[in-house]
Amino acid sequence: MDLLKSTIGAIRPLNEEWYATAQKKLDNLTKPPGSLGRLEEFARKLVAISENEAPLLDKKVVFTFAGDHGITAEGVSAYPGEVTPQMVLNFIRGGAGINVLARHAAAAVVVVDIGVDYDFGDVEGLIKMKVMRGTENFAKGPAMTRDQAMKCLEVGIEIANGYARKGYKIYGTGDMGIGNTTPSSAIASVLTGNAVSKVTGKGTGISDESLRKKIRVIEEGIRLNRPDPKDAIDVLAKVGGTEIGGIAGIVLGAAANRIPVVIDGFISTAGALIAFGIEPKVKDYMFAAHNSVEVGHKAMLDKMGLKPILDLDLRLGEGTGAALAMLLIEAGLKIYREMATFGEAGVSDEIIN
Amino acid sequence: MDLLKSTIGAIRPLNEEWYATAQKKLDNLTKPPGSLGRLEEFARKLVAISENEAPLLDKKVVFTFAGDHGITAEGVSAYPGEVTPQMVLNFIRGGAGINVLARHAAAAVVVVDIGVDYDFGDVEGLIKMKVMRGTENFAKGPAMTRDQAMKCLEVGIEIANGYARKGYKIYGTGDMGIGNTTPSSAIASVLTGNAVSKVTGKGTGISDESLRKKIRVIEEGIRLNRPDPKDAIDVLAKVGGTEIGGIAGIVLGAAANRIPVVIDGFISTAGALIAFGIEPKVKDYMFAAHNSVEVGHKAMLDKMGLKPILDLDLRLGEGTGAALAMLLIEAGLKIYREMATFGEAGVSDEIIN
Repeated sequence: MDLLKSTIGAIRPLNEEWYATAQKKLDNLTKPPGSLGRLEEFARKLVAISENEAPLLDKKVVFTFAGDHGITAEGVSAYPGEVTPQMVLNFIRGGAGINVLARHAAAAVVVVDIGVDYDFGDVEGLIKMKVMRGTENFAKGPAMTRDQAMKCLEVGIEIANGYARKGYKIYGTGDMGIGNTTPSSAIASVLTGNAVSKVTGKGTGISDESLRKKIRVIEEGIRLNRPDPKDAIDVLAKVGGTEIGGIAGIVLGAAANRIPVVIDGFISTAGALIAFGIEPKVKDYMFAAHNSVEVGHKAMLDKMGLKPILDLDLRLGEGTGAALAMLLIEAGLKIYREMATFGEAGVSDEIIN
Repeated sequence: MDLLKSTIGAIRPLNEEWYATAQKKLDNLTKPPGSLGRLEEFARKLVAISENEAPLLDKKVVFTFAGDHGITAEGVSAYPGEVTPQMVLNFIRGGAGINVLARHAAAAVVVVDIGVDYDFGDVEGLIKMKVMRGTENFAKGPAMTRDQAMKCLEVGIEIANGYARKGYKIYGTGDMGIGNTTPSSAIASVLTGNAVSKVTGKGTGISDESLRKKIRVIEEGIRLNRPDPKDAIDVLAKVGGTEIGGIAGIVLGAAANRIPVVIDGFISTAGALIAFGIEPKVKDYMFAAHNSVEVGHKAMLDKMGLKPILDLDLRLGEGTGAALAMLLIEAGLKIYREMATFGEAGVSDEIIN
């Protein structure tokens, strides 16, 4: 409780003066003003977040939180639950999509068991902070107790604080959990006010019939548990998931440490929306990695006023979109740091028309 | 003439069987089928272009063609013409946007003087293949003779052939030339059939009044020179530019060598559209890097059936968007080459819903 409270207390809004400082430098580089579009936006935001005129992104990390979901008993996913631990082991061995793309972006991957329904024993390289062995089935009652939801947030915050101490400069979020588009759609519906059918999609690829069932299961789960839209922790507990809570904790911890955090796709954005519900100022510290195929993603991004960086029809999760977006955010920073000014290059900056 | 003819003759359509070969491998990787969206599309296309089950993009290069434009005498640009050679020298010294982003993408930058109105003397690192010292003012007559336009295409083809021999695996296109959105809009109008006002924008940033003048100048130039929309070389000669011709040559040469080519923004796409007008099969070898701010870009991409990879409000040119897009194309290839299969990872690929 104290950790969450002190973390929220440490989150400050960005100081707009840093945007102006960065813009002044950007406008003196050898290019027409504003011609590098969103790359310039990324640079300004990094300067304002870090309160540093020349920030560096030399240490990058993607946190991939894994958890299982009691709601899979209702037949809402295309894959069986045992795929969650199998994929966790795949992450640890470096063979998954997030491993490939994080290597491409020169980012570390940190895999966290926050709620997998499996005993991993002594697996090297896995961060073991299990809050519970899978959530309860929210079609029958709350997915978690409020204490468990709080614990998930604290796990994320602790990890965010630890990697800040290790000198990491940018975080990405990722998820693994068979069935986790179902709690994410529930969160999207409760916190954006959209009907469940407007924010629920086919996840990893279920049939039309299963999609209708998934929508019905979510509607009934919300009716049964009555999550309070004004209390994001209540929403996380009643219809959420452990990995979603861990991601929300990372977002809160990143903001408290003035570290930019790249939000992956649908599940990560549900986590970000929980964090935003707890403390809206976190928004200033977030980059939205991409526009997911999953319907409902846009409603959540709109709620937070975030515009996605990429639109590549991705729907894998794991942090894959976050790793890719890091490459573009870093491109913006390199423009800001490395381009010659008009004076240095002997280029005329006279505008004649 | 013979070089162009033999190049066109060497361009073959892609063999669809390679797409199926690549898809089969992609569907066996530890992810739901299709869940990496356009990254998977990039991998399939690279396999089909190279006719290689395991292609590599170990050597990448962006060609930045520079040329001046007689049409600047009409006051169509925000910057004076002397900025073209100044920027060429900035490229050579490594201080421009394209240098920064190409370094980020681990791509070489090759700068070609194909038509700058300046004598560079002995500048190390500049490829000197000047066809003319700036084009003629197409408000008064053709920008180039047909022979000059052909020569521009051949310069691009020769460079494409040379870098194929050096073992480069992917090309990007780029441009520098004060005033060059004006010929590009003229080409867009003639070859897509859209009104000039629909495909003409503010370039590097002119006023509303200058934009109206720019549109009128292009309309009158087209009326005066009567470029034949069925003859892309005629269009290039009458209302085009040297750097646009060089880029068209790169596209033709890339396709003839079965090398993928990433088309940058508005000016590069005008060059690609000239190449497409000469031989539509080049389309299979192209990736559209991004969706430019410049209006008229989309009409040209639609004409060729290309969908841009990025949408970051870029309007700098130089090849900056192409360098960024290379990072994402390469990400797709790494997914294809490096991810574990279900069998390797011991992950269940059973779909239950």
